[in-house]
Amino acid sequence: MSDLLWPGDHRAGDLFTDASVVAAMIRVEHAWLTALAELGVAGITVPDDLAELVGPDDLPALAVGAESGGNPLIPLLKLLRSRLRGRNTAAAGWLHKGLTSQDVVDTALVLCLRDAIARIRADLLAQVGALSRLAEEHRETRMAGRTLTQHAIPITFGLKAAGWLTGILDARDQLAVAGKPPIQIGGAAGSLAAPAALAGGPARARELVAVTARHLGLPAREPWHTSRAPLTRVADAFVTCTDAWGKIANDVLVGARPEVHELIESTAAGRGGSSAMPNKQNPVHAVLIKRAALAAPPFAALVHAGAAAAVDERPDGGWHVEWATLRTLARRTVVAGAQTAELLAGLRVETGKMLATLHEARPGIDAEQQSITPGVAPDQPYLGATDEIIDAVLARAKGTV
Amino acid sequence: MSDLLWPGDHRAGDLFTDASVVAAMIRVEHAWLTALAELGVAGITVPDDLAELVGPDDLPALAVGAESGGNPLIPLLKLLRSRLRGRNTAAAGWLHKGLTSQDVVDTALVLCLRDAIARIRADLLAQVGALSRLAEEHRETRMAGRTLTQHAIPITFGLKAAGWLTGILDARDQLAVAGKPPIQIGGAAGSLAAPAALAGGPARARELVAVTARHLGLPAREPWHTSRAPLTRVADAFVTCTDAWGKIANDVLVGARPEVHELIESTAAGRGGSSAMPNKQNPVHAVLIKRAALAAPPFAALVHAGAAAAVDERPDGGWHVEWATLRTLARRTVVAGAQTAELLAGLRVETGKMLATLHEARPGIDAEQQSITPGVAPDQPYLGATDEIIDAVLARAKGTV
Amino acid sequence: MSDLLWPGDHRAGDLFTDASVVAAMIRVEHAWLTALAELGVAGITVPDDLAELVGPDDLPALAVGAESGGNPLIPLLKLLRSRLRGRNTAAAGWLHKGLTSQDVVDTALVLCLRDAIARIRADLLAQVGALSRLAEEHRETRMAGRTLTQHAIPITFGLKAAGWLTGILDARDQLAVAGKPPIQIGGAAGSLAAPAALAGGPARARELVAVTARHLGLPAREPWHTSRAPLTRVADAFVTCTDAWGKIANDVLVGARPEVHELIESTAAGRGGSSAMPNKQNPVHAVLIKRAALAAPPFAALVHAGAAAAVDERPDGGWHVEWATLRTLARRTVVAGAQTAELLAGLRVETGKMLATLHEARPGIDAEQQSITPGVAPDQPYLGATDEIIDAVLARAKGTV
Amino acid sequence: MSDLLWPGDHRAGDLFTDASVVAAMIRVEHAWLTALAELGVAGITVPDDLAELVGPDDLPALAVGAESGGNPLIPLLKLLRSRLRGRNTAAAGWLHKGLTSQDVVDTALVLCLRDAIARIRADLLAQVGALSRLAEEHRETRMAGRTLTQHAIPITFGLKAAGWLTGILDARDQLAVAGKPPIQIGGAAGSLAAPAALAGGPARARELVAVTARHLGLPAREPWHTSRAPLTRVADAFVTCTDAWGKIANDVLVGARPEVHELIESTAAGRGGSSAMPNKQNPVHAVLIKRAALAAPPFAALVHAGAAAAVDERPDGGWHVEWATLRTLARRTVVAGAQTAELLAGLRVETGKMLATLHEARPGIDAEQQSITPGVAPDQPYLGATDEIIDAVLARAKGTV
Repeated sequence: MSDLLWPGDHRAGDLFTDASVVAAMIRVEHAWLTALAELGVAGITVPDDLAELVGPDDLPALAVGAESGGNPLIPLLKLLRSRLRGRNTAAAGWLHKGLTSQDVVDTALVLCLRDAIARIRADLLAQVGALSRLAEEHRETRMAGRTLTQHAIPITFGLKAAGWLTGILDARDQLAVAGKPPIQIGGAAGSLAAPAALAGGPARARELVAVTARHLGLPAREPWHTSRAPLTRVADAFVTCTDAWGKIANDVLVGARPEVHELIESTAAGRGGSSAMPNKQNPVHAVLIKRAALAAPPFAALVHAGAAAAVDERPDGGWHVEWATLRTLARRTVVAGAQTAELLAGLRVETGKMLATLHEARPGIDAEQQSITPGVAPDQPYLGATDEIIDAVLARAKGTV
Repeated sequence: MSDLLWPGDHRAGDLFTDASVVAAMIRVEHAWLTALAELGVAGITVPDDLAELVGPDDLPALAVGAESGGNPLIPLLKLLRSRLRGRNTAAAGWLHKGLTSQDVVDTALVLCLRDAIARIRADLLAQVGALSRLAEEHRETRMAGRTLTQHAIPITFGLKAAGWLTGILDARDQLAVAGKPPIQIGGAAGSLAAPAALAGGPARARELVAVTARHLGLPAREPWHTSRAPLTRVADAFVTCTDAWGKIANDVLVGARPEVHELIESTAAGRGGSSAMPNKQNPVHAVLIKRAALAAPPFAALVHAGAAAAVDERPDGGWHVEWATLRTLARRTVVAGAQTAELLAGLRVETGKMLATLHEARPGIDAEQQSITPGVAPDQPYLGATDEIIDAVLARAKGTV
Repeated sequence: MSDLLWPGDHRAGDLFTDASVVAAMIRVEHAWLTALAELGVAGITVPDDLAELVGPDDLPALAVGAESGGNPLIPLLKLLRSRLRGRNTAAAGWLHKGLTSQDVVDTALVLCLRDAIARIRADLLAQVGALSRLAEEHRETRMAGRTLTQHAIPITFGLKAAGWLTGILDARDQLAVAGKPPIQIGGAAGSLAAPAALAGGPARARELVAVTARHLGLPAREPWHTSRAPLTRVADAFVTCTDAWGKIANDVLVGARPEVHELIESTAAGRGGSSAMPNKQNPVHAVLIKRAALAAPPFAALVHAGAAAAVDERPDGGWHVEWATLRTLARRTVVAGAQTAELLAGLRVETGKMLATLHEARPGIDAEQQSITPGVAPDQPYLGATDEIIDAVLARAKGTV
Repeated sequence: MSDLLWPGDHRAGDLFTDASVVAAMIRVEHAWLTALAELGVAGITVPDDLAELVGPDDLPALAVGAESGGNPLIPLLKLLRSRLRGRNTAAAGWLHKGLTSQDVVDTALVLCLRDAIARIRADLLAQVGALSRLAEEHRETRMAGRTLTQHAIPITFGLKAAGWLTGILDARDQLAVAGKPPIQIGGAAGSLAAPAALAGGPARARELVAVTARHLGLPAREPWHTSRAPLTRVADAFVTCTDAWGKIANDVLVGARPEVHELIESTAAGRGGSSAMPNKQNPVHAVLIKRAALAAPPFAALVHAGAAAAVDERPDGGWHVEWATLRTLARRTVVAGAQTAELLAGLRVETGKMLATLHEARPGIDAEQQSITPGVAPDQPYLGATDEIIDAVLARAKGTV
């Protein structure tokens, strides 16, 4: 999968593609079938693999078929049953028994989200590493601090990097809380009625769910067909990531302006070229990250709007709007995370220009210091608790706080 | 193209797909090349067709290549040049001369939007027809009017259909105003500097733009690299469409509830089935339309947010966020438009149930009438200007007002 | 009214305040009463003024009272009736007869919007004037054109001003189309049932509406209780304004950076000071305008979301969410419009710094020109159709196109 | 404070009003002054109270004054200094020393949020109680389960209440994590430079912050001027609340339809009346709660958009957009929380009608059960793990899980 109109999309590879969603739905059906067999509910030989029953060529027809019943599981199920029937008719008969479409779609979404979250976590970790190094290395790299676009007081680039790192750590921590969405299985109306009828009672029905969750490596939980916080939490965490990356991108975009020239993106692999102006070297990663930071908030808002539109035992549209919204948000977060990791790894810090600008900003930029300690020499440091703040943030990064 | 997680997406066919965007960018380059030749700027034989130079197999590489320069035109141009070079080296040399990436990307977006708008217009027209018939046919079909979910006073279903039609006509009119986005060509910084240098002066440069616009069938306009109202207007019109369709869907979703049972979706082609409950007949089209109406507003807001983030002579992210946002919004509007047209064409109106509910709603539903004309018999009509309102809306639909 | 947390809010004065909304609702009731009397439906002497019946001290109780019935008209009506009863009992008895709450609330919103629109139009006009002057005066003021934050090719500040002006003209034109929202009167369920029963037939009912509209100076229209395009159109136009102003603010924020120093806000009246740093001169207006441009899109999206949630003959929440959303959006648009007008009127253009930066940007910034006309002297103009584009935009501003 | 256009707003009382924000800013300044004195930095007698220096009559001028510097602290500080000068000139001289506007505004926002969160927590607690009772009491109250608006399988109302409760518990837990935003003090550029210069070193500067935090009862934290996750987290938690309440409201709005008549709002205190239709009894609370659930997501998105626009050491608009957005979101969340608590406390459950509808829904609603256990009698329970699910949710509510 790739998206010509979202440059960088290929970085998300096959995460959450149609093929991945189909594979995830099949995994859920397979895990359920396995649970039915393991608990002795279904006297069947569970096929080793269901995934091989469906191929890339089936995807267009599945997508078309999804409209009739309003969700992608219905045509997939039909296909799986028909292809399984010859080979393992007993299993075909037990396929999906006791489940409802939403169980499978929701749990498949959760599986796809889990993969995306793992990728984002890895990139956050890389960013934490890069920023820890920058904060340490540039502890004493002096530069002009800026507020409301104007020179304020001197700071160091290490402090700025520690500020970026704070945002990344907040995102990391929020994703740690949100990032383990549970299995969603409740049957037609969230009561596990069919599973209980099939398995011989409620305890057995819940065991079916537990076993399925274990096979999928997911936390168990009571049905949440219409309580969508497990998904909104993930969406919120994604946006918290893009917020943090957006701040970094904005600073790089200012720093990369020729008049400022303090922060330069790596030009590795010819990045940043122009179609007509050979002189240009554009901060392309920062541009694309800023784009992602602009786009993410309305997507998370839409996941919430879907949750808030829930009604009955399965919503009439609020549920359906989640799927593509979560997919796009997840892929874009993955893309922006990878771009930010790369941006930070290759960032060129123009320490000489930083210092030169600081000097040019005098005496104005020393005004606050002069007002507190009048007559102090202009080169006297005025860095306050910069070192201690950097230490505290680095300690948090290392998990020692 | 199809999107498993947006059931119905296939209805948008190849509108605004990666392939269509590439084809549109090529059309722009071709039209410009043609203008260069026609005005004698370039002494070249313009190739009949550039589209054949690029095939579906090139799309993934183009998408990947788009990241380096931050837009999809740069890798496409490289590809076109390399493939044209052997066949028509002179034309290859003149390709894109005088243009900037944004000229081509923007104008290609406009071409794709135009195609989507044409489809939406056709569906709006069909809806106007269907609703005019419903309003006419059910002028006197009495039913309970409802406000804040409660029975209010008697109305007719014709009046309700006329209300739906009003929404559609508003959307139609707004799209008529917004729906002709112009060409966007200004060169590197919106001054037509390179075209003028190539063509021999500003008048000739503007003529190049005019000829290109004519070849593409687009209105001419001064460059609008950073004044994005031509695009936000289209996005706003799309949402005005989904708002109108959302209202219809909401009413159908209420009417389709078994307890109400006044409006039933056609079950043609087995639509509305369930994966586990043979009894279910779900109002799938209304569900999917409601989904689209939930999703559209944040997408249009994002197009505006991009416009509001414009800066310099080309924005650093605000521009980039438009592309995929407009594409998704356009395709979904097309899908919802087709679904609404189909929903309306097959809508079953349960006039008997409407009347029965009206009777059961008595005497409460007659309370307002009784308070105005105490003692009036319960079957005395209380329809006010229903006929006149229907007539007025129908006249507007026919364009006679 | 003023809002401590939205600095500048006082510029919107009493537009759309609680008091203004109450006054507008009273105007609607009064106009309806007048129409009832004029058409001989009600044999009453219409009070000269109803507004005097309610004072500022009543507002808190009205606001509290609004919750019980879910809208502000119900408690107001009770108050008006009780206070009118002694003085003009006949009129008190006819008050609101034939109307529903939504008729009055909607039409009052329209009246408040009309006032806000008039203010915005005046500020747009002032901006058109200021920008026309800037574009004319700085036709030849050379500066570096910038794309994706980097120096691209030389432009003039007049061209930039013409670009800003294009955004303002687009906003002006969109507001001209959207800016005359009509009266909304339809009775309990949009059929004019009660008015017809009172007045003696549908024609007379429609005449009542027409007369009321005339008294209020509003266009007439069929009832639109659940077709909210007349309101979404206004919201969309407001955001189109803030988009255009946001672009200007973004450019000023870049231009005001000390390293760029090309565009400086007026410091009239001590604007831009800091609480602790005497050296700071912050571009406060641009900051506050950018804030408004960030905020407006989700507000318009919310008006659309409300419209899309319409159901039945009066929506169950979709209607209610419009009121405060439109008010806040309208006031903020007024505020940002006034701030932009002031910003433009006092903008200092540092032409010397622009030229100096252009020189420093060489030879890179001349690269495109050199690639087209190799060997051209660096001071040769490369401004393309700048003059013609400025002329065209100025002509559009004057309405001569 | 009250808002005529947001009925119910008075329930939020003086939370986050202009007066409360001013009081909170004064508390921050007072706590800082106290810390300066306690640590021996300032040799002053700290005034017992600063709040008395400013009264309600000062608010309008403060609001007007906020525009010039772009934030409300600047005019407040001027006022405080001038009024303190006569009485305690030494303290007046030390006021705000070492702080920057953002320190005070941010920490004041945090204080106001804390008060709102406390209110919301209390209402969530009440809702947990009411829903626990409903789930327990109606464990066996049978009704039709509905999916996609259609009858699906039988459930009990207790299960539905447990589903509502799940949403509330998710919101409670998310608010528990997000709900303790920390102090924000960092001086002009987040380095504590001025505090360190005043206090004699970084350790003492950090001690000043710690003492101030203790006086305000806030957690300490490194400066977060441009890492806004502490605020976005709160906003996300608020929306998670309104999502959960929206689900309840949507179900009540369906249940309150006359054709369904399963869930009836209390009519205490004459709630739900109509301006013209004496027969109407509108589910006003549910309507207003649904309104809040529609509105909240874009507000939280806007807080994120502000966070994502952060740049430099203080943002140029991204910061400013937070204030009013958080205030409005907080107040509306408080209002909706109180309305939901009241709605649940007075909810009438029409058990007879539920049962009657279930019977009418046969045999369709039994189809799934019949397909699993063909021939089972229609009155055989088909409730699966309903009891166990209710138990699990109740145990979570009691905190025993």
